[in-house]
Amino acid sequence: MIPPLGRELVLTVDQMIEGVHFLKHDAPDLIARKLLRRNLSDLAAMGATPLGYLLTVALPKNVADSWLEKFAMGLAADQQEFGIALFGGDSSSSLTQISFSATLLGHVAPGQALRRNGARVGDEIWVTGTIGDAALGLRARLGELLDTSGFLTQRSLLPTPRLGLQLANIVHAAIDISDGLVQDLGHICSTSGVGAVLQSHLVPASPEAAAFGEAMLQARLTEGDDYELLLAVPRENAAALINCCANLQITKIGYFVSGNGIDIRDGTGKKLPFSKQGWTHF
Amino acid sequence: MIPPLGRELVLTVDQMIEGVHFLKHDAPDLIARKLLRRNLSDLAAMGATPLGYLLTVALPKNVADSWLEKFAMGLAADQQEFGIALFGGDSSSSLTQISFSATLLGHVAPGQALRRNGARVGDEIWVTGTIGDAALGLRARLGELLDTSGFLTQRSLLPTPRLGLQLANIVHAAIDISDGLVQDLGHICSTSGVGAVLQSHLVPASPEAAAFGEAMLQARLTEGDDYELLLAVPRENAAALINCCANLQITKIGYFVSGNGIDIRDGTGKKLPFSKQGWTHF
Repeated sequence: MIPPLGRELVLTVDQMIEGVHFLKHDAPDLIARKLLRRNLSDLAAMGATPLGYLLTVALPKNVADSWLEKFAMGLAADQQEFGIALFGGDSSSSLTQISFSATLLGHVAPGQALRRNGARVGDEIWVTGTIGDAALGLRARLGELLDTSGFLTQRSLLPTPRLGLQLANIVHAAIDISDGLVQDLGHICSTSGVGAVLQSHLVPASPEAAAFGEAMLQARLTEGDDYELLLAVPRENAAALINCCANLQITKIGYFVSGNGIDIRDGTGKKLPFSKQGWTHF
Repeated sequence: MIPPLGRELVLTVDQMIEGVHFLKHDAPDLIARKLLRRNLSDLAAMGATPLGYLLTVALPKNVADSWLEKFAMGLAADQQEFGIALFGGDSSSSLTQISFSATLLGHVAPGQALRRNGARVGDEIWVTGTIGDAALGLRARLGELLDTSGFLTQRSLLPTPRLGLQLANIVHAAIDISDGLVQDLGHICSTSGVGAVLQSHLVPASPEAAAFGEAMLQARLTEGDDYELLLAVPRENAAALINCCANLQITKIGYFVSGNGIDIRDGTGKKLPFSKQGWTHF
């Protein structure tokens, strides 16, 4: 393989383990699509254009052929939707649990890959889309809350990678929200050597998530799987950012400060003492 | 990442699943090294020079930190031995079993990657090294036979990828023996549209394997994990092949014919009726 002329290759790998990243009774085509989309979201956070992927599959002997066929149909659907090819892979038996990994390849203009470590004191924190739908959707899948419209469940099962934004000359740092907003903001802070103030009342909620009110705020801010982009943006680029995200909700939710760690503050400026910072597994 | 100037990237991925590719009590550093070496062997079979890798790790919560430290030391040892870098990866918890995957990147001169599908009728079948040591070494690890010197066990736990041979203009097809000699020869045959005659008495055995005699012939020829190269070589290139493998045992073990399937014949020309063709998992 040769990257497109004058472009640089980027790679990312993510896995999905039964009982950790998906539930046994989840639809196999959606497991496949989420596997690809989690990785596509990583490429989006690097500002990359996807090319294709390598796949590993490990299946216990009791998995039905029809299950695997549906899984393959999910791969095929998203290969077409995102214009990516399957380059190769490895399959194996497994004693007890199903697991997958996908290695995604993408390309960027040389030196233009977005990174986590470029946030500077004074930069604003922006996010795409709405935050916390997947956390509530997971609870709906586990029967812990009622998702009448199915929107939250859908956001949990089938995230939308924010590909195609031209952010290279607009943002100082980027990451996709996979572990949870607070934890992923922490990754930017620690690699950039800065702290952050996160203004919880500014964090955008979908109407479906907002309906659950303040009781779900901590879950929405600290649990993962949203696959929205979290960006460090110098104030003077805010207009350009809004312009380049024309078809996408984009919201300022705080700012970077000197020091380290994250202060989460509500609309009155009061610190919120969250008991956990990131996603815990099923 | 950009491949070295004027070179083409190649990729391969392989996984190691607890209870399938390794045993829980195996030394973690050797599991790590075998994970890399299985993939390095794939690169060797493509005629590629290794660059680096991506890693996934899934660990149940009861795995000790010391286990993981030893695993990391194994990775570090082979990174140094083979001049490869860790480019990134993903770690996850797991409910029941340990699993790993590695995606290896390498480079070749454009259009010079060795392939499986180029064998032609009349080509000779050659193998590097000795065949069947790993099959017997696995039996030794399971306590089923006595490996006094430890050689067979070592061959099973720590294969040697046959990197660095300059085979591009010498062979018509290449594969590494991971599933078993007969099965991997079958992969060349089916993708090339040819059949093969495998001369069992010519298949090279180490002295340690030869000591177990004919009783182990089927195991040696049909079980995997040798990570030797299996090559389709036009007769006129045999001398060049021997020359380019100067420091490595290299043996002619049969020839490709028209048709399909593999005839396994002994020294008298009699067909051997093997009951299985390839590796079965633990």
